[in-house]
Amino acid sequence: MKELQDKLLKEFEIQFQDEAILSQAFTHSSYVNEHRTLGLEDNERLEFLGDAVLEYLISDFLYKEYSEYPEGKLSKLRSSIVREESLSYFAVECGFDEHILLGKGEEISGGRSRPSLLCDLFEAFLGALTLDQGLDVSKKFIQNVMVEKIKAGIFHQEMDFKTRLQEELQQNGEVSIRYDLVEEIGPAHEKIFVIDVYADEKKIGFGSGKSKKQAEQAAASNALENL
Amino acid sequence: MKELQDKLLKEFEIQFQDEAILSQAFTHSSYVNEHRTLGLEDNERLEFLGDAVLEYLISDFLYKEYSEYPEGKLSKLRSSIVREESLSYFAVECGFDEHILLGKGEEISGGRSRPSLLCDLFEAFLGALTLDQGLDVSKKFIQNVMVEKIKAGIFHQEMDFKTRLQEELQQNGEVSIRYDLVEEIGPAHEKIFVIDVYADEKKIGFGSGKSKKQAEQAAASNALENL
Repeated sequence: MKELQDKLLKEFEIQFQDEAILSQAFTHSSYVNEHRTLGLEDNERLEFLGDAVLEYLISDFLYKEYSEYPEGKLSKLRSSIVREESLSYFAVECGFDEHILLGKGEEISGGRSRPSLLCDLFEAFLGALTLDQGLDVSKKFIQNVMVEKIKAGIFHQEMDFKTRLQEELQQNGEVSIRYDLVEEIGPAHEKIFVIDVYADEKKIGFGSGKSKKQAEQAAASNALENL
Repeated sequence: MKELQDKLLKEFEIQFQDEAILSQAFTHSSYVNEHRTLGLEDNERLEFLGDAVLEYLISDFLYKEYSEYPEGKLSKLRSSIVREESLSYFAVECGFDEHILLGKGEEISGGRSRPSLLCDLFEAFLGALTLDQGLDVSKKFIQNVMVEKIKAGIFHQEMDFKTRLQEELQQNGEVSIRYDLVEEIGPAHEKIFVIDVYADEKKIGFGSGKSKKQAEQAAASNALENL
């Protein structure tokens, strides 16, 4: 933990009062399970809290920064920021992946670079930081780590394909966009959905996926390529 | 708005500095659409913010109050609190439904008592309150309005049937519970799923629903009745 503490102090001017809670944020359940005699607690409860902290801080930032955005656009932007891919990226950016305590099995199976684990770690850190230092310090941390990237628009670009297709098609006026389920292939537990997308009744793309939502995204992405 | 302001002051000791933001929280989009010349803003952006405020405050409360609960139990409890049915109930408890500005069509079609609209209203109010008075005042409001009910356990009782079945079955030791998809009936857009539930390989209930999740809940509920 010493190395992590030094890093936090140097890079973010953060100094935990309670080292145990910092340590808990970096303790994966697989490590707890392999060291039962130590009576450790894993980072899952902190992740529960940190998830909500992050959602609030990002919402507050977006509400104030993008005062001209309607609710729908704010919600989409928020989802593209708080999702697993983004948060695991920020965990690595902060070098958090180097400090997590993992069980051996988890380590061997590549847990240290697994997005879901890194996303949980980032949230657990925020939970611990908020408990130890208060919401304002977490806000400053988010400001340092995430806000520049948000302002640079990288999450706008990652906005989902359906939204991008709609924006692309409707920039010169109203266009009616329709997604049609064409086929469901395979048994119930591993069904594949196939969907066509139409603009003003002309087919402009198609795609498939394990859910209708996924298939629609794939179809929209295909249509964007075809435009 | 005068009546609402008096009520907030009398019942909750809340006095808004910015009356416009309070008014916006109580302005439904249908009202804005019918009064375009007034240049009003509806409550949807405030709802975006208030949703995150509520999620954070409830998470913080649950984390600290139920320090012995594992993450999964906290998450379930949180979902049962922040869902539409609960929040619309609290909106009515606070008498907020009497003060919302609705368009005529929305009024005629019963918008004033529609759970989704009331839930959004409650969240928009929290968003406005946080912007105007800060997070601590919102926390106090939640404390007044929601916390007693949470402590009384009404949301625990509403916990989902699958969790209750599991707790019921496993109180005297480990039992393996399995949900089996038996059948999918009907065309893709109105499919009905049928699911059996087994305890230690003995069938103890079944149920159906418009999603697998719904069908599992129905099966668990049926099993609880059968026990």
